[in-house]
Amino acid sequence: MVKFDSFDKNFKVPFGPTKILTKQSFFIQTRDEEQVTKAELVVYQDEHWEHPEEIIPMQQRSNGHYQASFYASQAGLYFYFFHLYTADGEMYYGCVDGGYGGVGQVYQERSAVQMYQLTVFADDYVVPEWYADAIFYHIFVDRFNNGNLDGHVNEPKADSFIYGTHEDLPYYVKNEQGEIVRWDFYGGNFKGIIQKLPVLKEMGFTALYLSPIFESRSNHRYDTGNYLKVDGVLGTLQDFDDLIKAVHQAGMHVILDGVFNHVGADSMYFNATGRYPEIGAAQDPASPYYDWFSFKKFPTEYVSWWGVADLPAIRKDSKSFQNFIAGKTSSSVINYWTGRGVDGWRLDVADELTDEFIFKIRRRLEEYGNKILVGEVWEDASHKIAYGKRRHYLQANGLQAVMNYPLRQLIIDLLTGKITPVTMVQQYLTLKQNYPPAIFDHNFNNIGTHDTKRVLSILAEDLQKLKLAFFLLLTLPGVPCIYYGDEVGMTGGADPDNRRFYPWSKENLVIKSWVKQLLDQRHADPLLKNDAAITMKAQENCLVYQRSKGEESELFVLNPTSTEQKITVQTKKGMQEVCLAAYEPKIISE
Amino acid sequence: MVKFDSFDKNFKVPFGPTKILTKQSFFIQTRDEEQVTKAELVVYQDEHWEHPEEIIPMQQRSNGHYQASFYASQAGLYFYFFHLYTADGEMYYGCVDGGYGGVGQVYQERSAVQMYQLTVFADDYVVPEWYADAIFYHIFVDRFNNGNLDGHVNEPKADSFIYGTHEDLPYYVKNEQGEIVRWDFYGGNFKGIIQKLPVLKEMGFTALYLSPIFESRSNHRYDTGNYLKVDGVLGTLQDFDDLIKAVHQAGMHVILDGVFNHVGADSMYFNATGRYPEIGAAQDPASPYYDWFSFKKFPTEYVSWWGVADLPAIRKDSKSFQNFIAGKTSSSVINYWTGRGVDGWRLDVADELTDEFIFKIRRRLEEYGNKILVGEVWEDASHKIAYGKRRHYLQANGLQAVMNYPLRQLIIDLLTGKITPVTMVQQYLTLKQNYPPAIFDHNFNNIGTHDTKRVLSILAEDLQKLKLAFFLLLTLPGVPCIYYGDEVGMTGGADPDNRRFYPWSKENLVIKSWVKQLLDQRHADPLLKNDAAITMKAQENCLVYQRSKGEESELFVLNPTSTEQKITVQTKKGMQEVCLAAYEPKIISE
Repeated sequence: MVKFDSFDKNFKVPFGPTKILTKQSFFIQTRDEEQVTKAELVVYQDEHWEHPEEIIPMQQRSNGHYQASFYASQAGLYFYFFHLYTADGEMYYGCVDGGYGGVGQVYQERSAVQMYQLTVFADDYVVPEWYADAIFYHIFVDRFNNGNLDGHVNEPKADSFIYGTHEDLPYYVKNEQGEIVRWDFYGGNFKGIIQKLPVLKEMGFTALYLSPIFESRSNHRYDTGNYLKVDGVLGTLQDFDDLIKAVHQAGMHVILDGVFNHVGADSMYFNATGRYPEIGAAQDPASPYYDWFSFKKFPTEYVSWWGVADLPAIRKDSKSFQNFIAGKTSSSVINYWTGRGVDGWRLDVADELTDEFIFKIRRRLEEYGNKILVGEVWEDASHKIAYGKRRHYLQANGLQAVMNYPLRQLIIDLLTGKITPVTMVQQYLTLKQNYPPAIFDHNFNNIGTHDTKRVLSILAEDLQKLKLAFFLLLTLPGVPCIYYGDEVGMTGGADPDNRRFYPWSKENLVIKSWVKQLLDQRHADPLLKNDAAITMKAQENCLVYQRSKGEESELFVLNPTSTEQKITVQTKKGMQEVCLAAYEPKIISE
Repeated sequence: MVKFDSFDKNFKVPFGPTKILTKQSFFIQTRDEEQVTKAELVVYQDEHWEHPEEIIPMQQRSNGHYQASFYASQAGLYFYFFHLYTADGEMYYGCVDGGYGGVGQVYQERSAVQMYQLTVFADDYVVPEWYADAIFYHIFVDRFNNGNLDGHVNEPKADSFIYGTHEDLPYYVKNEQGEIVRWDFYGGNFKGIIQKLPVLKEMGFTALYLSPIFESRSNHRYDTGNYLKVDGVLGTLQDFDDLIKAVHQAGMHVILDGVFNHVGADSMYFNATGRYPEIGAAQDPASPYYDWFSFKKFPTEYVSWWGVADLPAIRKDSKSFQNFIAGKTSSSVINYWTGRGVDGWRLDVADELTDEFIFKIRRRLEEYGNKILVGEVWEDASHKIAYGKRRHYLQANGLQAVMNYPLRQLIIDLLTGKITPVTMVQQYLTLKQNYPPAIFDHNFNNIGTHDTKRVLSILAEDLQKLKLAFFLLLTLPGVPCIYYGDEVGMTGGADPDNRRFYPWSKENLVIKSWVKQLLDQRHADPLLKNDAAITMKAQENCLVYQRSKGEESELFVLNPTSTEQKITVQTKKGMQEVCLAAYEPKIISE
């Protein structure tokens, strides 16, 4: 039949994404009995489906071995497949269902072919130096630490509840209609983070990602009330400035959560219940904020985020809003906070923002020189289509990283036995093949966030599996971001149970010490930096990957099964037998 | 036909309840055409229904005018009717349906007769001097005042919520099954009461009735967890002692709420969830508390108060529990707290306790000499039958007062137009006829409690009606008890809305000033003391009552309607025309 493997340098050179105007070579091997009379490489440019960008005749180099080259003229996505002509007719070779790279399959019908993705990138990706090998700590601020000596909660909100003790489990106070009627707070605040900075630094974290901090009604603050004010529950503006200062004095960095797709119904902009003195959009069509929103029937029916009435959505094309957020003036939201020293932003639901809005935010940040822009995307962000449109936020002028939920899923699926190492490798390399390398290497990796169940609970509280999950997170390329408390064994199911208060003085110190060791190792080992290359393969029941830089390399051999595994691995020094206990990882110097 | 009116001295002397072994005379007037040949006064003693206590032949004194006398030999209730023999047969005269005194009716069937109540009392009722003319302030402690300078809540409980602000409206946090899953607290405490004592004293209050204060899970604390410990949310034992001391230094008094019918499921006695270190009844039948409870199926099925699983009921005959509460040792609950200076107790659901238990509590209190025992009963307590048994708690050795909910109902029904002054008088005099006079004169009167909607809300926020309600409460006999905040215009529906936090600095000062005036007047006017007699009648649309002592008397004329009323009242000085605006009360010196 036909052989091709997009991961294999015998079939595609170079591996994966390619720089603009760089030669890419494709090889296929057909069995000579096929009597292939002609082979073509068919390449489409993304969003230009009316006809192929190129149909490149393949050269037969030896018996049944064909080759073609392609130079992409634009950054972005291309898609390709092979068109083969035989004496009996035509056939096609594309990738397997699901869009994964690697070995593909033959299709008889042209219309059925799934094409391989070919990512083409410009040469100008950069990430700030501090970010390149950062290790982030993700803090859900209300749930981390209260820095007030007497433990009081700063400025409790009207119609809210404060937990009796920090050990209480989170609980949504809902009415019979399932609506949240009182928001619940533990009272974590800026001072609490300042207080714990030495501990976090000592642990090995170099940066913080804070959940939203702007004035809002809820404890999560994804329902922004006022973009230009810190939430009184968290502290004063002075407290915020003190935090930024303390973070920088510790040699650390901090990024904020920018929620620019929707606001709170009770915000000063929408002001549904008149909580704010300003005239909000829901109060009067003459409101300066009226054009930010789309009313179907004023004032009660309007477009909201996933139909949640509490979160009226911003019109995608509202220039007024986009300027308010990311305009040139010093008072734009991005300038105001970045000007106060913030080191970057994580964009909430980035895939629901327009590319132009994201580019505008990035442009603003570039003026500061060393800021980072991370986006929330749950899927393979390289080719995501949202609201019917391909997203271009991974261009060099867009996001510099996305929250790497696909990696999290692979790690968890591997450890819970849902996928084999073979599938892990196929899907991991597909990500590597699809993402621009600067993004793949600096992606915002996690094994759990405020939006997922706690990793330890997903792993059925199996500490060996947890250790292996941390091992993967901290030895694979990307910028690891650990959700507060995962490093000390916090458990919890879905929201709100994944947002318990940090268990001060009740931490699992065994887990903490493993994680610290892994962090220390990542800081110490040059082969765990993001400029070290990675190759990955499955071998028997194990996962094997190599990190390398110049002459140096290390082999990582992991047993993701519950039984002992013995395998013989190829090292630079020759074959080596490795014996791994259940869920054991080993690092082999080469 | 036949005439009789139990309220009229022409028909029954003396009025109402009578001392033991005192002559009571009954008169009936029959029309001579009736040709009554014989008349009998038939008297039953309560709980001896097998035959009448006495059948007293009535003497004909003049044409159709019959008389009989009766001496009751025992304190308690008697019931009577008249049996008349005529040429045509027999007939009967009893009271009207509902058991109200006053004019009755003729019955043709003996089995249909409703009997008049005759309350017979011993001579030994006493109330402490301080109580006789006290004016109480009823404090739901969590909702009154937080005395901590920084406003922190003392020892918040695990799995509880604290309101964000004092202005928040109370809310029960319930799960989908309607069970309360987190108790809610504002953080009122002992220090807060101490702080406000000068204000309460200045207002005219002379005593406090505190909602339960013992360690419990809930904010109302009717689910006692430990009878010998104050709830940490309210403060320390020292704070409690300070409160008692401050109350007494202010010349005031304080009574506690004794909840002795049930405990909390999470109490140290039942200990359903193992919250306490002690072995509770629900944990082991060997628990020292096991015999306090009635298990149908250990440990999950047990008798509880009104089927509320959170409130396991105490066995009515548990001597062990009764001794724990009211035994002679200094560590019994009554002795422990009374010994610390408490001036009395309000017994929760007194009508569910056995008479013997109440007598035991009273006996204990008598050893201190000046304590008061008030019971919670919602109906006419003089003849209440609960669980198939007549209750004897109004004997001289039982309760000294009950919460006068029937009076509250009359006041509210009159002001909301549900009853006329005629009905008000009939029902009010029935209470006076039925209660031992010392109890009627010192009954624990209210127009609202923690178990009712706020009086102002029931009166549809009509301030004129509210004024008249306070006027009635404060000019009728009994010991008035004002539910915190009613005096400053607090509103609220049913529980929990009737338990909002006291609106410090947002009080309605107009209402407060009326109420203060009424309190001042009650303190100043000897005819508003409880040793002043009362008579009451309806006149046209108005209510007229007289308070008198010796030669002195005053007439109270009230217009409970929304239109102006002009009536001519009989005063000692002669007829006087009174003109009353809507809902206006007037006091006329005689």
